[in-house]
Amino acid sequence: MTYCLGILLEDGLVLASDSRSNAGVDHITSVSKTDIFENAGERMIAVLSAGNLATTQNVVSQIRQASGSGNLERDIFTTQTLFDAATMVGSTLRDVLARDANFVSQFGDPNASFLVAGQINGEMPRVFQIYSAGNFIEAGPRGQFLQIGEAKYGKPILDRTLHYQMPLLEAAKVALISFDATIRSNLTVAAPIDMLCYQTNSFSSEMQASFTNQDTYFQELQTAYSSSLQNILSSLPTPQFG
Amino acid sequence: MTYCLGILLEDGLVLASDSRSNAGVDHITSVSKTDIFENAGERMIAVLSAGNLATTQNVVSQIRQASGSGNLERDIFTTQTLFDAATMVGSTLRDVLARDANFVSQFGDPNASFLVAGQINGEMPRVFQIYSAGNFIEAGPRGQFLQIGEAKYGKPILDRTLHYQMPLLEAAKVALISFDATIRSNLTVAAPIDMLCYQTNSFSSEMQASFTNQDTYFQELQTAYSSSLQNILSSLPTPQFG
Repeated sequence: MTYCLGILLEDGLVLASDSRSNAGVDHITSVSKTDIFENAGERMIAVLSAGNLATTQNVVSQIRQASGSGNLERDIFTTQTLFDAATMVGSTLRDVLARDANFVSQFGDPNASFLVAGQINGEMPRVFQIYSAGNFIEAGPRGQFLQIGEAKYGKPILDRTLHYQMPLLEAAKVALISFDATIRSNLTVAAPIDMLCYQTNSFSSEMQASFTNQDTYFQELQTAYSSSLQNILSSLPTPQFG
Repeated sequence: MTYCLGILLEDGLVLASDSRSNAGVDHITSVSKTDIFENAGERMIAVLSAGNLATTQNVVSQIRQASGSGNLERDIFTTQTLFDAATMVGSTLRDVLARDANFVSQFGDPNASFLVAGQINGEMPRVFQIYSAGNFIEAGPRGQFLQIGEAKYGKPILDRTLHYQMPLLEAAKVALISFDATIRSNLTVAAPIDMLCYQTNSFSSEMQASFTNQDTYFQELQTAYSSSLQNILSSLPTPQFG
C-alpha cells in the first residue's frame, strides 16, 4: 500500500506521500512517490503515486521522457491547464495498463492511482485524483482534500480540523498527524514522509521537507500530539450509564 | 457495514456497537447489534455482530433459542468459560454458513463476525473476536481492544490513548470518539451507539446507554473534542520547509 494526500487551501497546497513499497511482507523497499515537473515561475506540477510500483514508475517515466519534447499530447510542460495535465497522466496510465495488465494480473493487482496537483500560470492551484480507470475528480473548497492508497486511518483528523482558510503550515501539521495515524496502524505505510507546501503563485517547489522517524521535529510533534490528546480526554464530559 | 468495539481493561470492559444495517444505499434500517446473555451474579456475556444481517441474526437466534435448554453443546448459560462460549458462537456460525452460504453468495457476501465479551464466575473478564471461519482470537493487556466491521477510521484514537489501566468511563469517552470518527467518514455506520460498560465481578449489564445523534451528552462530547483538537493544533510545533 501507500498513502498520499493532497490538500487544497486558499493559500496554496499541502502535498504528502509516504515511502514504503512492499511486495508481500518480506520484500520492503523505500521509494519516493512524489515526482515534480517544474518550470520556475510558470508551472509547478506534482504527481503523487499509489498502487502497483511497476505501473506507477512506468507512467511517471513516460511522462518524464516526453517532457521537453514539445509533443502537445505527451509533454507535461506544454499543457495549458492542470486539467490537461491530469488528462495526460490518466491517458498514460491507460496506455500502460492496456499493455501490461493482462500479464501482471495473474501475479497481482496491476492498478494504480495518482494525485496530480500544482499550478500553471493563468490558473489557481488545483488538485486532481486519477483513478485506475484513467478518469479523475478534482478537489474544491468544500471537499478540499483528496487521498489515495491507505486513506481511512488518516481521514478523521482531516475531517475534523481542515478548512479552506487554514494557513499552509497549520495544514502541514494536520497532514503529518494524518500520516502518523496511518503509519501507526498499517505496516504498508512508512516514513520518510515527503512533503511539499506550495504557496499560490510561487510556481516553485522550494518548500519541501522529508520527515524520517528519527527527525527531531516529527518526534516532537508525535509526542506533543499524543500527550495533548490524553489531556483532552480528561477534560471531556463523562457519560452516564445505567 | 457495521462497527463494533470491545475494550479489555483492568476494571472491566467497554463494549459498543453502531445501529446501521444496509443492503445497498437505499435499504437502510436501524438494528441493535449487541445481544446480552445474563445470569445475574454468575455470568454476563455480550455478543456483538457484524456482517450479513441474516447470518448474524440466525446465529444469535439459535443461541437464544437453545439458552436454558441445558444442552451442554448449545446452551450458552452452561459454558464453564468464556472461551467455551466463543467456541459455541463460532460453531453456530459454521453451521449457519454451511447451510446458507452457497445460496446467499450469488446475491452478496454471507459472512459475519462477532465479538464475544463478558465474564463468567471463576474467570476474569475476557474479549474474543470470532472470524467468519469460526475460529477466534482473544484480547489481552497488550492488545486490549478488538474491532469488527469498519474498523480503520476509529483505530488511531484507540492506538493513541487506550491503556489497560484506564478507568472504565474514560475508556467509554475514547470509544465514543472512535465511533464518532467512523460515523463522520462512513455512511454505513450510524448512531444510535449502544454501549455497555462492564465492571469486573458485577456479573451485570446494568451500565448500558444508547447515544443518538440528538443526545445532548454525545453532541457536547463531539463539539468539545473537535474544538479541543483545533486548540491542540495551534499549540503544536511548526515544521520547517525549504
